[in-house]
Amino acid sequence: MKNSLRTLALASAVLVAGSAVAIPPPPPPTATELAQSGDDPAWSITEDLTTEIGPRMAGTEAESAARRWAVARLQAMGFANVREEQFDMPVWVRGEEEASLVGPFLPQKLAITALGNSASTGAKGIEGDIVYFPSYDALVAAPEAQVKGKIVFIDHQMERAQDGSGYGQYGRGRFIGANAASKKGAIAVVIRSIGTDNHRTPHTGGTNFEKGVTPIPAGALSNPDADQLVRQWQRTLRMRTKETALGYTPEPLRLKLLLTPKQVGQQHSGNVIAEVPGSDPNASPVIIACHLDSWDLGTGAIDDGAGCGIITAAAKHVMTARQPRRTIRVLWAGAEEVGVFGGKAYFEKHGTEKHAVALESDFGADRVWRVDFKLPASAKALEDRIAAELSAFGIVRGKEPAGGGADIGALVAAGVPTLDLQQDGTRYFDLHHTPDDTLDKIDPVQLRQNVVAWTATLAILANSSDAELP
Amino acid sequence: MKNSLRTLALASAVLVAGSAVAIPPPPPPTATELAQSGDDPAWSITEDLTTEIGPRMAGTEAESAARRWAVARLQAMGFANVREEQFDMPVWVRGEEEASLVGPFLPQKLAITALGNSASTGAKGIEGDIVYFPSYDALVAAPEAQVKGKIVFIDHQMERAQDGSGYGQYGRGRFIGANAASKKGAIAVVIRSIGTDNHRTPHTGGTNFEKGVTPIPAGALSNPDADQLVRQWQRTLRMRTKETALGYTPEPLRLKLLLTPKQVGQQHSGNVIAEVPGSDPNASPVIIACHLDSWDLGTGAIDDGAGCGIITAAAKHVMTARQPRRTIRVLWAGAEEVGVFGGKAYFEKHGTEKHAVALESDFGADRVWRVDFKLPASAKALEDRIAAELSAFGIVRGKEPAGGGADIGALVAAGVPTLDLQQDGTRYFDLHHTPDDTLDKIDPVQLRQNVVAWTATLAILANSSDAELP
Repeated sequence: MKNSLRTLALASAVLVAGSAVAIPPPPPPTATELAQSGDDPAWSITEDLTTEIGPRMAGTEAESAARRWAVARLQAMGFANVREEQFDMPVWVRGEEEASLVGPFLPQKLAITALGNSASTGAKGIEGDIVYFPSYDALVAAPEAQVKGKIVFIDHQMERAQDGSGYGQYGRGRFIGANAASKKGAIAVVIRSIGTDNHRTPHTGGTNFEKGVTPIPAGALSNPDADQLVRQWQRTLRMRTKETALGYTPEPLRLKLLLTPKQVGQQHSGNVIAEVPGSDPNASPVIIACHLDSWDLGTGAIDDGAGCGIITAAAKHVMTARQPRRTIRVLWAGAEEVGVFGGKAYFEKHGTEKHAVALESDFGADRVWRVDFKLPASAKALEDRIAAELSAFGIVRGKEPAGGGADIGALVAAGVPTLDLQQDGTRYFDLHHTPDDTLDKIDPVQLRQNVVAWTATLAILANSSDAELP
Repeated sequence: MKNSLRTLALASAVLVAGSAVAIPPPPPPTATELAQSGDDPAWSITEDLTTEIGPRMAGTEAESAARRWAVARLQAMGFANVREEQFDMPVWVRGEEEASLVGPFLPQKLAITALGNSASTGAKGIEGDIVYFPSYDALVAAPEAQVKGKIVFIDHQMERAQDGSGYGQYGRGRFIGANAASKKGAIAVVIRSIGTDNHRTPHTGGTNFEKGVTPIPAGALSNPDADQLVRQWQRTLRMRTKETALGYTPEPLRLKLLLTPKQVGQQHSGNVIAEVPGSDPNASPVIIACHLDSWDLGTGAIDDGAGCGIITAAAKHVMTARQPRRTIRVLWAGAEEVGVFGGKAYFEKHGTEKHAVALESDFGADRVWRVDFKLPASAKALEDRIAAELSAFGIVRGKEPAGGGADIGALVAAGVPTLDLQQDGTRYFDLHHTPDDTLDKIDPVQLRQNVVAWTATLAILANSSDAELP
């Protein structure tokens, strides 16, 4: 880290406009030095946002208050062109949520939360027989007669991985399990949370119904509650086998479910944008993104308050060190969790503008462990410079192309170059979309490492030549 | 461990009644060998009880079902004299529970749970200014005028310790904080959970009001929610300082609270008792205890399903190895959590009977790490034998006298000797009295170590001479 700092300090000294006094003034601090200094805007942004605003579900008054808060904070930090760009989007809000196993054993309450876009059970709730599926694929393969009129349970425990790679595969039960169950006539669907913890804090997240498919009530049980359901299911199976042999009527496992969320129609949301103006008005900007909205159960500390803290701290440090050649555009997107409405709205408004490169931070606050690139061939030397810089902070160079992030997804799909500062996701899915996504889960040391990595990367990207990044 | 097994095998061979055939049969397995074999009644008792019954709050239908379940299970395991001994006790049941910080910031929900014996806020809830105390002692020292008409918050985070020693000191905020607050005219009390985790699963537990003191609503926030309240409190203090200097009216931190528990009067509870009859009808029995009831938030796996599993597995193994000299009496006490009513009822009925020694398991399912004694001077050699035996399982000999446990507390106070197989409590207060007290938290390897330690100890105690334990 020492060597790297010295290199940056030398580079910075070269860039400082010389003055003709006998003893030259010391060079201004490099962006990385600033990022390692005592001033920690990443922490203070995350702490203040999660404390003073807390949960900020897209399209609600809380998200609107968060945008006002964000504009004031970004202006106070010295950014230019700070503004809201509003858009409208459909809003779903949570209601009551209760579940109980009610037979054949004594009634027992389960910890449940509704999935986004879940239908309501009505105020009286519903009760039904459970039909068990070990996975989403097993549900899809099942005959309709097995599902019709029942409450579908989808098991399938997600496993822990540093790169979070289980989410896409195991997540299908949440993303589209309710849709598949509804098509086969299920009255509701309950899934094992898409999460790796064993606390009684279920994981919410969106589920989606195809056009023409009737939305049904859909909820997630915490892992310990899913375990309990499975143990009772296994016992009823054993009882059925025994009792059927004896000529008794088998008793099914019964669930009572009360979920009363509702769709409240189109509401205002918006993106918050701030800029560090570059010295070259003809250079295309670097865009860095996070999302401001959160799910409603926690205070959105790791998802994605910390992401906004990290990218904004990095932009601030680059700005303080010296004016970059390219403009840095900071995007705090709205309404990401419920369908990436902010990212889409940004693309509709700005998609035809030239962007040199797009980056996003939206995978928690644990350390960056790998850098992946998807830059044009002209940026080979630039990639090498970034990778060399980051290796000082324990970050390895990946072999896969970068994917970008949700809010810059449309830009990347349209051909804007990207790079990923991949965060360690080992414990991300312990907390993701749960009540436990709160400030205390953030490790300040790892958060700081993110800021240092982002600052070093951003300083290089924002000062890159047009030959490297056209 | 090998040496210890050989010693026990030899001891066991000596005890077997000889037969006159040419090749003597192999000795029966020692109790410790059985405890280390595949058969694991500690796990199956804990799994079945927490799955088929689940939460079993004292005096409720669930506790009654648990007693029926327990009698059937203990009979099926081959114990003698299995019976319920009923008693009546006052019952408090949980209602709705909600809390929100409602000013000066945007409303935010907090995770709260009512403490046992909390009064109700009424169906409409109450709202009030928060007055902050860093500890129970600070509340006691405060003038009445500071507290009157307010909602008292007691902070004071409990620290993690292997022997659980923080519970008594930090627990005062829960045990008697509401009583102290009520005497000074508070309208409610909210405490930081007496727990060491950082999940949004608050810790319940009993609070007690002196005769003549009006019960007030009393709840516990989870640690992350207490952190959030403290951060908002600190911000309102800073705002007040600034605004007071400017001549504005300071804005207090406001809490809205809905807790609707109720006292439902005297209900039936009971103890379940089972025995391993000893070979010497004149020898005084060994009593081993756990408690069958649990709080209502979790399924009572570590508190105290596992305790019942451990002591019962040990008694079963001792019984299977060979008939002990003394009777072993197994007590699954009722209604411990809410005031040790089962322990008191046992003492009222049996306190005048002679007991050789009393032991209890009620501190989770993690490994036994220390053995403490409070035996008569005549048992010095017995203590040495037990300590030597246990040292093979990584258990050290403590220097403090044993304390016993809640359900055998009256016996020990009346002079019955005791010893403690102290369990590792490092993570006990992460789970204690929370929704997270569920089966998945039990480590089967550590549970097994408990059974081995208990079996070895119990085999020695149950075969001790009258000279050692009169």
